[in-house]
Amino acid sequence: MKQYLKIDEWNILEEGFQADNLRMSESIFSLGNGHFGERGNFEEPYSSDSYRASFVAGMAFMDKTRVGWWKNGYPLFGTRVPIAADWRSIRLRLIDEELDPALWSVNSFNRRLDMKAGLTRREMEVTSPHGHRLYIDVTHVDHIARPDLCVIEYSVKSIDYTGRLSLLPLIEIHAVCKEDPTGEKVWNILRSGIGNDCAYLWTQTRLDDAQVCYAMTYSFLKNGAPCNAHPIRIEKERQVGFSIGTDVKPGDTVKLIKYIVIASSMQHERNKLLDHAVEEAVQIKSIGVDVLKHEQQQAWQLLWNEMDVQIEGDPAAQQGIRYNIFQLCQTYRGDDARLNIAPKGFTGEKYGGNTYWNTELCCVPFFLEATPYPIAENLLMYRYRQLPQAIENARKLGFKEGAALYPQVTYNGEECHNEWEITFEEIHRNSIMIHAIVQHALLTGSNAYIARYGLEVMIAVSRFWGQRVSFSQPKQKYVILGVTGPDEYENNVDNNWYTNYSCVKCLKTTLHYIELVAEQYPDDYARIRRVTNLQLQREATRWRDIIDRMYLPVDHKRGIFVQNDGYLDKELQTVDAIPPHERPINQHWSWDRILRSCYIKQSDVLLGLYLNPTDFNAETVRRNFDFYEPMTVHESSLSPHIHAILAARIGYVEKAYRLFLHATRLDLDDYNNETREGLHITSMAGSRLAIVRGFAGMQVRNNMLCFDPVIPNRWSSYAFKVHFRGRTIGIHVDKRDTRVTLLSGEPIRIRIKEEEKEIG
Amino acid sequence: MKQYLKIDEWNILEEGFQADNLRMSESIFSLGNGHFGERGNFEEPYSSDSYRASFVAGMAFMDKTRVGWWKNGYPLFGTRVPIAADWRSIRLRLIDEELDPALWSVNSFNRRLDMKAGLTRREMEVTSPHGHRLYIDVTHVDHIARPDLCVIEYSVKSIDYTGRLSLLPLIEIHAVCKEDPTGEKVWNILRSGIGNDCAYLWTQTRLDDAQVCYAMTYSFLKNGAPCNAHPIRIEKERQVGFSIGTDVKPGDTVKLIKYIVIASSMQHERNKLLDHAVEEAVQIKSIGVDVLKHEQQQAWQLLWNEMDVQIEGDPAAQQGIRYNIFQLCQTYRGDDARLNIAPKGFTGEKYGGNTYWNTELCCVPFFLEATPYPIAENLLMYRYRQLPQAIENARKLGFKEGAALYPQVTYNGEECHNEWEITFEEIHRNSIMIHAIVQHALLTGSNAYIARYGLEVMIAVSRFWGQRVSFSQPKQKYVILGVTGPDEYENNVDNNWYTNYSCVKCLKTTLHYIELVAEQYPDDYARIRRVTNLQLQREATRWRDIIDRMYLPVDHKRGIFVQNDGYLDKELQTVDAIPPHERPINQHWSWDRILRSCYIKQSDVLLGLYLNPTDFNAETVRRNFDFYEPMTVHESSLSPHIHAILAARIGYVEKAYRLFLHATRLDLDDYNNETREGLHITSMAGSRLAIVRGFAGMQVRNNMLCFDPVIPNRWSSYAFKVHFRGRTIGIHVDKRDTRVTLLSGEPIRIRIKEEEKEIG
Repeated sequence: MKQYLKIDEWNILEEGFQADNLRMSESIFSLGNGHFGERGNFEEPYSSDSYRASFVAGMAFMDKTRVGWWKNGYPLFGTRVPIAADWRSIRLRLIDEELDPALWSVNSFNRRLDMKAGLTRREMEVTSPHGHRLYIDVTHVDHIARPDLCVIEYSVKSIDYTGRLSLLPLIEIHAVCKEDPTGEKVWNILRSGIGNDCAYLWTQTRLDDAQVCYAMTYSFLKNGAPCNAHPIRIEKERQVGFSIGTDVKPGDTVKLIKYIVIASSMQHERNKLLDHAVEEAVQIKSIGVDVLKHEQQQAWQLLWNEMDVQIEGDPAAQQGIRYNIFQLCQTYRGDDARLNIAPKGFTGEKYGGNTYWNTELCCVPFFLEATPYPIAENLLMYRYRQLPQAIENARKLGFKEGAALYPQVTYNGEECHNEWEITFEEIHRNSIMIHAIVQHALLTGSNAYIARYGLEVMIAVSRFWGQRVSFSQPKQKYVILGVTGPDEYENNVDNNWYTNYSCVKCLKTTLHYIELVAEQYPDDYARIRRVTNLQLQREATRWRDIIDRMYLPVDHKRGIFVQNDGYLDKELQTVDAIPPHERPINQHWSWDRILRSCYIKQSDVLLGLYLNPTDFNAETVRRNFDFYEPMTVHESSLSPHIHAILAARIGYVEKAYRLFLHATRLDLDDYNNETREGLHITSMAGSRLAIVRGFAGMQVRNNMLCFDPVIPNRWSSYAFKVHFRGRTIGIHVDKRDTRVTLLSGEPIRIRIKEEEKEIG
Repeated sequence: MKQYLKIDEWNILEEGFQADNLRMSESIFSLGNGHFGERGNFEEPYSSDSYRASFVAGMAFMDKTRVGWWKNGYPLFGTRVPIAADWRSIRLRLIDEELDPALWSVNSFNRRLDMKAGLTRREMEVTSPHGHRLYIDVTHVDHIARPDLCVIEYSVKSIDYTGRLSLLPLIEIHAVCKEDPTGEKVWNILRSGIGNDCAYLWTQTRLDDAQVCYAMTYSFLKNGAPCNAHPIRIEKERQVGFSIGTDVKPGDTVKLIKYIVIASSMQHERNKLLDHAVEEAVQIKSIGVDVLKHEQQQAWQLLWNEMDVQIEGDPAAQQGIRYNIFQLCQTYRGDDARLNIAPKGFTGEKYGGNTYWNTELCCVPFFLEATPYPIAENLLMYRYRQLPQAIENARKLGFKEGAALYPQVTYNGEECHNEWEITFEEIHRNSIMIHAIVQHALLTGSNAYIARYGLEVMIAVSRFWGQRVSFSQPKQKYVILGVTGPDEYENNVDNNWYTNYSCVKCLKTTLHYIELVAEQYPDDYARIRRVTNLQLQREATRWRDIIDRMYLPVDHKRGIFVQNDGYLDKELQTVDAIPPHERPINQHWSWDRILRSCYIKQSDVLLGLYLNPTDFNAETVRRNFDFYEPMTVHESSLSPHIHAILAARIGYVEKAYRLFLHATRLDLDDYNNETREGLHITSMAGSRLAIVRGFAGMQVRNNMLCFDPVIPNRWSSYAFKVHFRGRTIGIHVDKRDTRVTLLSGEPIRIRIKEEEKEIG
């Protein structure tokens, strides 16, 4: 853990320059607007250790699969995310020196991420190697109301320097991906140059012609007044921009405002991309930075109105949860079903910019609860659109008749991962697709999505399960052999309880909704039967038999579900037995040692209990929690918030609080020693879930919204809104009382603890 | 399967040119002499599909590990085998045409591998695109009595061509390994050129300065008489040689004899390498090809005297077993403990030229039985020399106190493989090291090797087992979790019976030999205690406890050992249930499907029964064989001979015969559709073992050599020699009788079936 950032309820604060933490800070101060995003790199070049990267949504490249030993079924290519142009770049030159915070003395340094205003600001005083002192003040905005826009205000005050000072706003690109050992080019440059006082760089991904056009213009001011500085044009193939110089003396302030448009072929027609980018750059310059910052603040105000959670009495928790909401919302805007949320968002290349089951597990319920807009529905549509590829993926693995296996990792619907124990065996991911669809129906109160799209996915996934189980003679039960559960610290196990349970659940759900759609949406049902070629009698018979005779491992003595066959043969030890310097174990132990240890990355039995709250009583949850949680190392970012929710549900409020803090400050406090690689964007959704479903105990039972609130000792109160079946409902919990108020929509009956009442 | 090669007891015959089978034939007609070897490529260029490669023993290069997802513990580098210079190359030019069998018409084509003479001969009539007919006759010898020498006789008769005919004997090298996507250079050229009528090419592997110097000279004859043809010198950096031309008319025969010396820094001092190579080339030319061929035949005669197996009544089996002996012996000469036997020998790059447990499983017992020379001892010494690296390898995985884990794949003692389920989990390999050492003691009758070297290895390996087991509370037994057994179609299983049994056996053996060495070799014992820091009391106590309380899975109802936990939960089906077009399954099924199927690559329970013949009675073997063999696909080349031996032992003689044929003609008949990649050199040792230990039923019981012969229906007799404790013993089995004769050494008591007798 690292705790060098300062606590504040609305800001992330870094005081004093810490080169050793630079990569982590670059992750933490990342910005984005759903369409593009970048790590919190300095605008200036930094010649020491740094991870400089920016990304544009929807841009990807195909990378040939590299494995030591090939297995049948591996995809030939996987998608990876290319680093986009560096549009942030601004260089500062004195007569014969250029600012590089790695080489200049940094006398004072402050930066903050202002989550209300939606910007970062960095102030620093530096001394050049020749002894000149300058004061730098940089504000950076990725505009969430204007999807193509980034604005940077870069101001320099001379403290004791007299002479020429130049600022160089640039757009630069590396055509080759650094990580790619073959050095293959990712980006073609279609055109670059300067026109209309606007520098542009028009790029194209190799192989599949996705395009991004960057355009940039600027204002230049000296002591507050516009200053015509006769810019020098920089027009190289991979670097365009301007060099704008003026003479300064001590006390003078020079300010550059850099207006950047990042327009991609996801949003614009290819043949209008260049014109659009240049025109928009000119236009936004005319609007001016102050108006743009105001718009930004207002847009964030709207978001905070919907989504904010207020915690009284615990600034660290308050900061953490706002940070998570802020990062998630600036990564994904929810208006485009072609896009999804990569685990690292725009903050790192790890996980290749691809989609994981994290989306369905964390982000779908987050958006269902936190906003009235159909954001979750767009995420569901993303998978629906990829159903044909999921069917093809299953076919390649030997499955028939329209069975679908959604990929573990994907961009365009094809599998991108090549570890057999994951790619072929972490098949539980298939069930969460169905779970997310059901959550949507439950929270919106409408089955229309299921009738229109969801049932097709359900049928295809159930067909997979129908073929994937096998029948054990000794057990006289259906078994599921050779899987990896959500606890990825077990590989290729038999009868992972979570997987078996989720298979059964999935089959039941499918049968239920087949009946419902047949009755309520007969036209849709007829269409679905036709396109899926559903053989209802035969298929339903098989599915019912599996439901009836699925093996679900249980330890009756302990009264727990057994994670997987053989788990109890391990030497069972709690996490305290691991020497602290060996944690996280995935950074210190060889893989076989992790596998044969009892230690759990995230407990999948507990995950199953979380996902099916109405199927198990508190006593069952408690016994399993008591057994599994002490052996869980929480080295998956998906783990802590799930465990926090369960802990709250069984009254372990302080345990829940610690797990909530872990989930909520995972990146801010660098629990897993990896924040430097990027943020855990998708699991950030989990900390709001931990409040709503954990502490406030929200559940839908028999179609009624129920709360069962608890409150950690340290907090005096917490409050949030949820959106439920067309209504907005406010919840305020303090030590004495829970207040639930209807903020919009029709009156509704709800339950708080044991008491049912109508609000309205 | 492919059966286009003709059957002959002493020759492998290919009649008619079959371009589609060219890669396979190139494997089949491979030659070598222990120091170098090459695939059976044409001397001439071949512009269509072909796999051209030659190799020099002891040459390797370090290749950076490439995996999609890194696991802690993976080696950073693995060793691979570089393709050496092409010393075989001879080009044939007419006025404006050059022979290329892919482009010229091949009117007739015959080639044979003559295993008595130790050479290949290829005769073919070709017509050039311009219509000129030639008759080509090529003999190729890799000289087993002269380790640096290759001789090629290349004769061309003009049938209807009049004009200039040139032959170009060349040595050529590609500096970059084709397979290497980074295109890194493997070979540096130190010097190349021509001196003393001798072309040379002096090369060095990048990174570790292993050197090979090639030198080549020639004789040129026309119609049987030496012909001074004023050669043109070819002296490029990577290609040296001569162009020798003469005018021919129909009926004329031109012959080139190419004398090639391949001298490496394994055998010669670096600073004398070039001089040595050139001098030897000149010297062998003065000896002349006829004498050299005679020497070669004599050297092979000596080998056949020792090793041959005669089978009457079954030319296909006879051909197969001779082919296997021939290939194994020309791959490994057994005189250098720095060398070992790669699974593909000099016939392909697969498996990287590295050493696998194949050596201890197949080759050590083969050489122990088949020759009186200390070849097996050199193979054991190879592992002893690598003990420090095996200890380091275990340390990296978290083991302590001098525990050793021998690598699954190695060249220099370091692990070269990077699949976690193999690298970290296929740990049974550790035990076969000990088994091989014990075999050596058993068959030589001496414990001196154990006292001097073997016990150190035993202690280090036993220490590994002592730390690798864990204790299961539910079972109240020691268990071994997370392993891959010899049946690699199960990964990461618990309690693989073979692994658990071999662990116990290993501990018992170590304790036994500690006692024996302490008593009989007290000086060695004192040294070993010192260097290993053996804590006898504590360590022996632990090992005995494991021996007493190891869990060995058994199915009492079926009376079989259970391959691993959970195996019986699979849907058990025999191999006939697989559609023929889906075999071999490893070329058609995705990995997860293979893993969750019941199908067995090689049965490891049966392997355990084979390796411990005196521990189990025939009834136990039969029950396990009846259960496991029908589910075994034999897709490991190590599988069929083991199963053949067990089948013979339990009286399933015809089954044993079919498995023996599979083992023995694996490559000749291309059972696994992969001969084109190279031969299965190490498992070739298995077919002689199948005769000796299978059909003849040889075992050592209570220090007595025992035979229990059976004979397949088709055979009228079979005969071979074995070497046992300083004696050479001849065995002849026919339908009526078994004759065992002492050919050299002291009289000895043996047993044939139930009858004990002395031979002498």
